[in-house]
Formats: sequence, C-alpha cells, structure tokens
Amino acid sequence: MQLDQATVEQLREWEAELAGQYQAIVAKQLNLDVTRGKPSAEQLSLSDTLDGVLEGQYITDNGTDTRNYGGIDGITEAKRLGADLMGVPSSNILVGGNASLTLMYQTVLTAHHFGLTGPDSAWKNGPAPKVICPVPGYDRHFTVCEQLGIEMITVPMTATGPDMDAVEALIKADNSIRGMWCVPKYSNPTGVVYSDETVDRIAQLGKIAHADFRVLWDNAYAVHDLNSDGPELASVFDACAKHGTDNTVIQFASTSKITHAGAGVAFMAASDANLAGIKKFLSASTIGPDKVNQLRHAQFLPNRAALMTHMQKHAELLQPRFDAVLTALDSAFSGTDLGSWETPQGGYFVSFDTRPGCAKETVRLAAEAGVKLTPAGATFPYGDDPNDCNIRIAPSVPSVEEVVGAMEVFVTCVKLASVRQALSQQ
Amino acid sequence: MQLDQATVEQLREWEAELAGQYQAIVAKQLNLDVTRGKPSAEQLSLSDTLDGVLEGQYITDNGTDTRNYGGIDGITEAKRLGADLMGVPSSNILVGGNASLTLMYQTVLTAHHFGLTGPDSAWKNGPAPKVICPVPGYDRHFTVCEQLGIEMITVPMTATGPDMDAVEALIKADNSIRGMWCVPKYSNPTGVVYSDETVDRIAQLGKIAHADFRVLWDNAYAVHDLNSDGPELASVFDACAKHGTDNTVIQFASTSKITHAGAGVAFMAASDANLAGIKKFLSASTIGPDKVNQLRHAQFLPNRAALMTHMQKHAELLQPRFDAVLTALDSAFSGTDLGSWETPQGGYFVSFDTRPGCAKETVRLAAEAGVKLTPAGATFPYGDDPNDCNIRIAPSVPSVEEVVGAMEVFVTCVKLASVRQALSQQ
Repeated sequence: MQLDQATVEQLREWEAELAGQYQAIVAKQLNLDVTRGKPSAEQLSLSDTLDGVLEGQYITDNGTDTRNYGGIDGITEAKRLGADLMGVPSSNILVGGNASLTLMYQTVLTAHHFGLTGPDSAWKNGPAPKVICPVPGYDRHFTVCEQLGIEMITVPMTATGPDMDAVEALIKADNSIRGMWCVPKYSNPTGVVYSDETVDRIAQLGKIAHADFRVLWDNAYAVHDLNSDGPELASVFDACAKHGTDNTVIQFASTSKITHAGAGVAFMAASDANLAGIKKFLSASTIGPDKVNQLRHAQFLPNRAALMTHMQKHAELLQPRFDAVLTALDSAFSGTDLGSWETPQGGYFVSFDTRPGCAKETVRLAAEAGVKLTPAGATFPYGDDPNDCNIRIAPSVPSVEEVVGAMEVFVTCVKLASVRQALSQQ
Repeated sequence: MQLDQATVEQLREWEAELAGQYQAIVAKQLNLDVTRGKPSAEQLSLSDTLDGVLEGQYITDNGTDTRNYGGIDGITEAKRLGADLMGVPSSNILVGGNASLTLMYQTVLTAHHFGLTGPDSAWKNGPAPKVICPVPGYDRHFTVCEQLGIEMITVPMTATGPDMDAVEALIKADNSIRGMWCVPKYSNPTGVVYSDETVDRIAQLGKIAHADFRVLWDNAYAVHDLNSDGPELASVFDACAKHGTDNTVIQFASTSKITHAGAGVAFMAASDANLAGIKKFLSASTIGPDKVNQLRHAQFLPNRAALMTHMQKHAELLQPRFDAVLTALDSAFSGTDLGSWETPQGGYFVSFDTRPGCAKETVRLAAEAGVKLTPAGATFPYGDDPNDCNIRIAPSVPSVEEVVGAMEVFVTCVKLASVRQALSQQ
C-alpha cells in the first residue's frame, strides 16, 4: 500500500475493504489494553520470594538496624545493588523509596525552588527556566515540569538519541535552559539506545550550559535487554569525569521493572555536590527510606550475575510479545508509506509514527474496536504532538495471543485512518 | 532545694557539693543517649513476622495486584487499618509510603505552592503565610516550614493543649495565618492530651480563619498509651463535621512506632476536597505507594483488637523506662523551684522545664558527662527557646538501667546549672 501514489479510485476501494474489516473487528467486542509499560503478573511472580527473603535478619553487615529510623541515603547493601544496576561507584549512589519518579520530582523541585548547590543556584531565581524534552518522550517527565511550572521545549529523537545539534544550538542560544530529560537506553517510547557519541556530547553540555543546568538521566531500562547480546550504553558518569562536568548529569534507576513494580527500590547517582543538595532537601521531608525493603532487594539480587540471570527471565516473557508487535508491523507496513517504527532490543515499548495527522484517529478507531492505546499526544509535552503521528504500544501486560489480537486491530485502524485521510485530501 | 530563698552561703555550699558529684559522674565516662523518640530493638522485634507475613499472597480482596503500579491513595485493606488507628471513615483515608512526615511535607508544599483546592488557594498567592506552632513542639514540623520559607509564630502549650485564647486571638488579628501544627495526643514533647474543649475549639477555627487555613493534626501517638485506661482524645473529625468545617483539619498518623519505625505505613485523613488536592499533587510525583507493604501491615494488624493487643506489648517495654525518668524527677525536684514537668500517660517523651536560662547549660554539662540530650531549643521554631528552659527526654531506646544512669546525670546537671546561675545572679 502506497498512498502517495494511489488514485482516488484505488483509495475508495481500499477504504471500502478496510471499513468492512473494521466492522468485523468491532463486532468481536474485544477488550484489550496496550497502554502502560507495566510488568505482567507472570513477570511480577519472578520476584515473589522477596516477601520473607530476610528470614528474620533485619541487620545489615555494618550493624544498621533496617527496622528503625534514619539513613537518608540508604543502606550499604542497597547502594551496592544500585552500583550493579547503574555502573557507578556505590559512594555516588543514593537509595530512595519505591519510585524513581519521586526521586526525579524531588530533584527537579530542589533544583527549581531550593537550589542543588545552595540557595543561589535555585532555578526560580533566574529567568523563567526551560527544560529540553526529546520527543517523543515519557509523559510522566512532562507532568513533573508542568506541575512545577517549568516550560518545556522539544528536540527530535533520532536513531542515536536526541538530535544533539539541536540541543547544543538551543543551549548556546538561550541562557534560561536549566535541564534536559533523557531516557538513554531503550528510550521511552522509541526504544533507541543513545550512541557513544551522543553520550559523550551530553556529558560535554556542562561546558556550554548554565552552571545550574542538569541532565535528568532516567536509566529506567538499564538491564532490560530482550537479548543477552543487547547494545551497551556508554557510561555517562565516566564521560562526565573525563570532561570535568561531574555536576551536569544526575542519573536515576529503579527495580520497578526488575522485581515488583510498585514495591521496589529507587536509586539516584550523582556527584557529591548534587547528592549533598538533594540530601538537604530530603532531610526536611522524610525520616529516611524503607531500609527493610532495601535489604530485601539486596538479598534477592546479591550481585550483578544474579541480576542479569533474573533479567533473562523477564526477557523470555517479553520477547514473544515484542515479536508479535514487530511481526504485525512488518507484515502490514513494510514497504508502505503508512508509518515507520524502530525495532527495540529492550525496554517496554514500540513507538509507531503514522502519517502526519493520523495518530488521534487511529487511537479513536482502536478504542471503538475495544483496543485501548496510550492517548495520541501523550508522548509530547502538554499532550501536543504537532504532527499528530506518534503512538506508543506497550505489549508487556497482555498475553501473546492478546497482543496478536490487538495488533490486528491496530494495523487495520492505521490503514483505515490513513486511507480516509488521503481521500479527504484529494 | 529552693534556690529563690537560699542565701549565697547556702548556694556556694550546694555548688561545691554538686560540682563534686558531677566530677564523680564525669569520671565514669558514660555513653548514654536519650535524644530521639525511636523504638528500641526489643520493640521493633515485636513486628518481625512482618517480612513473610504474606506467604506469597500479594492480591487484595478486591483483586488488586499489590506488586504492580498504581493506586495513588492505597489499598482498601490498609485504609481499614488507618480507620482503626485514626477513628475516621476508611473513605476519608489516604495511605502513603513509610513516613507520615513525607505526607505532611507534601501537604504543606501543596497548600503553599499549588493549592489544596485549586491554584487560587495556594498560600503563596496571598500575603506571606504564617503557621502557628504550639511550643514546645516537634522539631521536624518546624523544619518543614523553615525549608518552605513559611514563617512560624508560637503559642504556649498548656496542660489541655495549645493556649486556645492565644490561637483564636492571633487568627482574628492576622489574616495571613494559614496553618497550625498540632500533636493532639501525648504531645511531642509535653505528653499532654488535648482536652475535649480544645479539640472542639480547634474544629471551630475554620469559622474564623482564612478559607485556606489548615490544621496539621499529627496524631503520631494515637494508640501509644502506657496504660490500658489511658485518656481518650475527642474526635476532631466528628467535631469538624458538627461545625461544618470539614476542610479545616488534616490528620496524619503512621505505624512507625507500632511496627518497624522506618518501614511502616503512613496515613492521612481529610475531607474529600483536601484529599483531591493532595492526590492531584501526588499523581505528578509518584507512581503510587508501596502497596505490598500496606498489605503486609493490614495482615499483621487485621483489626482494632489486634492493634491494641500489639500496643500493649509496647507499653510493657516503655512503662519501666518512663517510670525511671519520672521517679528520678520526682525524687530530685518535687517541692523544689528547680523545674517542672508533666507526667505523660503515653507517647515517647518527658518534657522538663528548667529555671529560665538553664537548659543549654544543663544539656552541655550532661554531654560532657557522657549523656546526650536533644539540643536545648530544638523544641522551638528556629531552635530558639526564648526562656532557654525546655529539655526533651526520650527514654525509649536505652535499657531501664541506662535510663536510670542517664537520669542521675540529668538531675545533677540541672541542679548544678541552676545553682551556678543563681550564684551568678547574686
């Protein structure tokens, strides 16, 4: 199917055929959901020995009683797990509660209102701050900025990460830019892994940006490979050390998609100065994280090898679901002008770009046919996809059969929306 | 010992005698700590079956998978536990993470920056807000306000709660007052329980205060009685309902001093409007609380009777420690003019008022003799006790013998500081 070369007659023929297929699908009264990047129940069950793993031993190796108050930056054992996960020295890690999103929110809140390196560094003291958002991106990052009243400006994602020429140009041109969101590995939603060059250029942003500029490096899928020979992400920590920009990048990760999604442990990795700033904030707002759960996780994943073996089990459950999505896209859209997508080797999403102006209609048609997709636009700040083309597909929760069923609907809806749009433009 | 009636000669004699006793104590090289209101290891062990209590059952009665994301206000089972603890309908309860301090911080942050009932209600949009702090009070409450740049003004604590005449007068006179901290039962540090009249007058503050005024009702010691026939705290929730001031009071509690101090579950109870405001804030900063730990706690404390039986075990451990403090104070200071104190029937503290100007010196002398006390002034906003007289004693962590030892030191230091001050004023 090549719409750009099709005649009106051909388009009308396709429309009639697709409308018929669509009606047949609607009649099935499906109820499928591929909206959120959540682990499936099977994946969650991989970690069910967590509750009880301590066998009554609540004391850490250095004698800390995990049951009591205190310890704003987490226990040593959990820092080791964070180091295994993030490839950063334990001493640069802070271990939080159950959500890395909370650590990110607290970091942006601290940077904006209180200052990560003293009151003078608070973003609110300068011109109205702006944060760069590679798009498509993660809606919850955008919500953090939106709630805190921080303006977002977008740069395109490419197959090697954010368009770094655009990023550098923006920073050089505008002294009010204070931050940038990144999901460097299996980016949400496009699934790309930042290239070594991109990582290095990001580490160098500290040389050209305002002193209070911070990259919010959400490495949510650090070990979430579908294949054991998945791509390596270069170490941004090492790159910053090399370039003398240690304060520029603040990293985040969690066990949310490793153990139990809502009951895991979150980490941040940062320079001493950044950690001091965030600890000062945290000391007013918490008595410390749940250290018992930190110890549970450290016991459950005692070393890097155990972590990787565990992630292999996730991959075995996820791979057929991703295959179902990609097979459907390949067979429907390969060689057509109806859409484009990346083939992720990990993470939780497949990102599909329809022809401009077709995403909302596709999502609407799918919903009416009983298949819930993430709202079109959600992958852009303020919910505004200027080309109305990006759709995020999250296949982890449904069964493989359900993913196959959802993709049949998806493919039909993309085609129908595209053909109708092409017809309307004749 | 009555200093006000003593001759210089008598004071000199006492000073010499006490200085000798003090030197003998210093020579013992003690190392005792009565600074923080933490449960002891014995108390924490009462809840050690928590880890493993689920026996692999992670699903709630209504089918929620506690392991996955979602559920910003907590699971039904945990709301029931909150209702048992706080005496408020389950439907008015939000269950958070491991720290009620975090819920309080988030509430004040929301009220100040974002508005609990829409953007117009944000405190920062009006005149610089002030919050009333009954003193002596809890240092972490003060830190929340201090970090958020909210001015604190003090009112005296009495044996029936805050001086309500002073509170009402302040609110009537100053339209910039937006909040008030309260620890209504076994108040930190004085140990008093607010009288029924005080609770009722607080519920009525909504009639005279600004619409965005909120009482932050930190019921940290709701079930923390030393005796089974402890005093009853009147229901501020019912009082607000009676007076039509449902939005005025936001309640907080947690299991921190019930189960594991750092790994418990926190609760807030509020009107529908206040809950909606806080949920809107939370939806940007978290993917939801740790529901697995909520389910653990609901299983461990399945009903109000189980909760009260459990608290009885805490009381058995705490009572001899409180007795040691009170016996020492009674035998040293009864009938003297050296200090005053309340006799708490629960909670975690005994609050002692020295003669004006003697608290800092007492704490300094005790530290030199190897007994760590909470810094003098910590129970006042900005660390400033204008009379320099309040000292908080927290006897829960040391053994009974250690408390006895610490109190010997304390008593000697109070006497020595007092006599020296009296001498210096001759």
